[in-house]
Amino acid sequence: MTIQPVQIEKAYRLLQIGPTTMISAQHKGDADVMAAAWVGIGGPNKVVAYLGTQSYTRQLIEKSGYFVVHVPTVQQMETVLYVGEHSKSTMPDKIDSLPLFYQEDYDIPMVEGSAAWIVCKVLPNPEQEKEHDSFMAEMVAAWSDDRVFRNGHWEFDSAPAELRTVHYVAGGQFFAIGDGFKFDHGPGQD
Amino acid sequence: MTIQPVQIEKAYRLLQIGPTTMISAQHKGDADVMAAAWVGIGGPNKVVAYLGTQSYTRQLIEKSGYFVVHVPTVQQMETVLYVGEHSKSTMPDKIDSLPLFYQEDYDIPMVEGSAAWIVCKVLPNPEQEKEHDSFMAEMVAAWSDDRVFRNGHWEFDSAPAELRTVHYVAGGQFFAIGDGFKFDHGPGQD
Repeated sequence: MTIQPVQIEKAYRLLQIGPTTMISAQHKGDADVMAAAWVGIGGPNKVVAYLGTQSYTRQLIEKSGYFVVHVPTVQQMETVLYVGEHSKSTMPDKIDSLPLFYQEDYDIPMVEGSAAWIVCKVLPNPEQEKEHDSFMAEMVAAWSDDRVFRNGHWEFDSAPAELRTVHYVAGGQFFAIGDGFKFDHGPGQD
Repeated sequence: MTIQPVQIEKAYRLLQIGPTTMISAQHKGDADVMAAAWVGIGGPNKVVAYLGTQSYTRQLIEKSGYFVVHVPTVQQMETVLYVGEHSKSTMPDKIDSLPLFYQEDYDIPMVEGSAAWIVCKVLPNPEQEKEHDSFMAEMVAAWSDDRVFRNGHWEFDSAPAELRTVHYVAGGQFFAIGDGFKFDHGPGQD
């Protein structure tokens, strides 16, 4: 496998299938990773993320103005639960055991094993952030594991099952993404 | 099957798995249905929906302050494409062929065959609506097809395959939701 860049105009497709995500952030060397099920597309090249006030990662995002949205995979389900169950506020070594890597130009750790990673730059909207814990951000760079997303398309049918995206319900219940259906037409032209 | 109410506190679970949606709205007897892939959870009991300015349905929502988010199913994939491909602006009879029904107290048509329907009341945020086409709304009522969502949980494993949710990529490419995975713990306690 290789981790390859995703055209930013196509990066919305990484999130359009509605996966549960992980979010990472870093400020002055202090980094954290959280689980986030309430992250979606806010418009062309834009993300809307609900970040609760209790989240340590949110504090880092407020300081740095950047975060990375991960599209986690079946092989990472325990990791998604783990980063969602623990807070760095009370567990300073929370992320020390995670397999992290960095992409050039961005000082934000990314977790190995995800299907994709999207660097997002906050578009400040103080009222929405304060009143609704809702953060809007612009996608500025993205990469994918080319075994599962390449040339702007998800390739779940040919990818290992453990690379399917995960979709969280509640109480430890996940669903993986399932069968594909292709029509010869669609609202979009591509 | 019966269509049963969903506890509003659990209605977020209808959208948390990230399905592509349909949205309907009505104002003074004028109704429309659109496809919407950029609809997600904006917080507890809240929805964030991207509604492009070209959308006839958006105009109805701006006038009425209400819309219904549908969670469509595999059996409705052609319907999702159909309502996404056509605009009522140029096709006044667009929704005449759809199997519509109404729930008591709400003058908004709902499309039969979906897994769930969520009535949402717009929480006005003029700047976000104008600048980002982003609408925030409160979930005020919800129903589900009890064959596939009951007692606050998705039951895809026991439901007919055609009731699985749909997750759109682009160019006519959909994925249905797939296999379930249950852990005995999770970030949430329920």
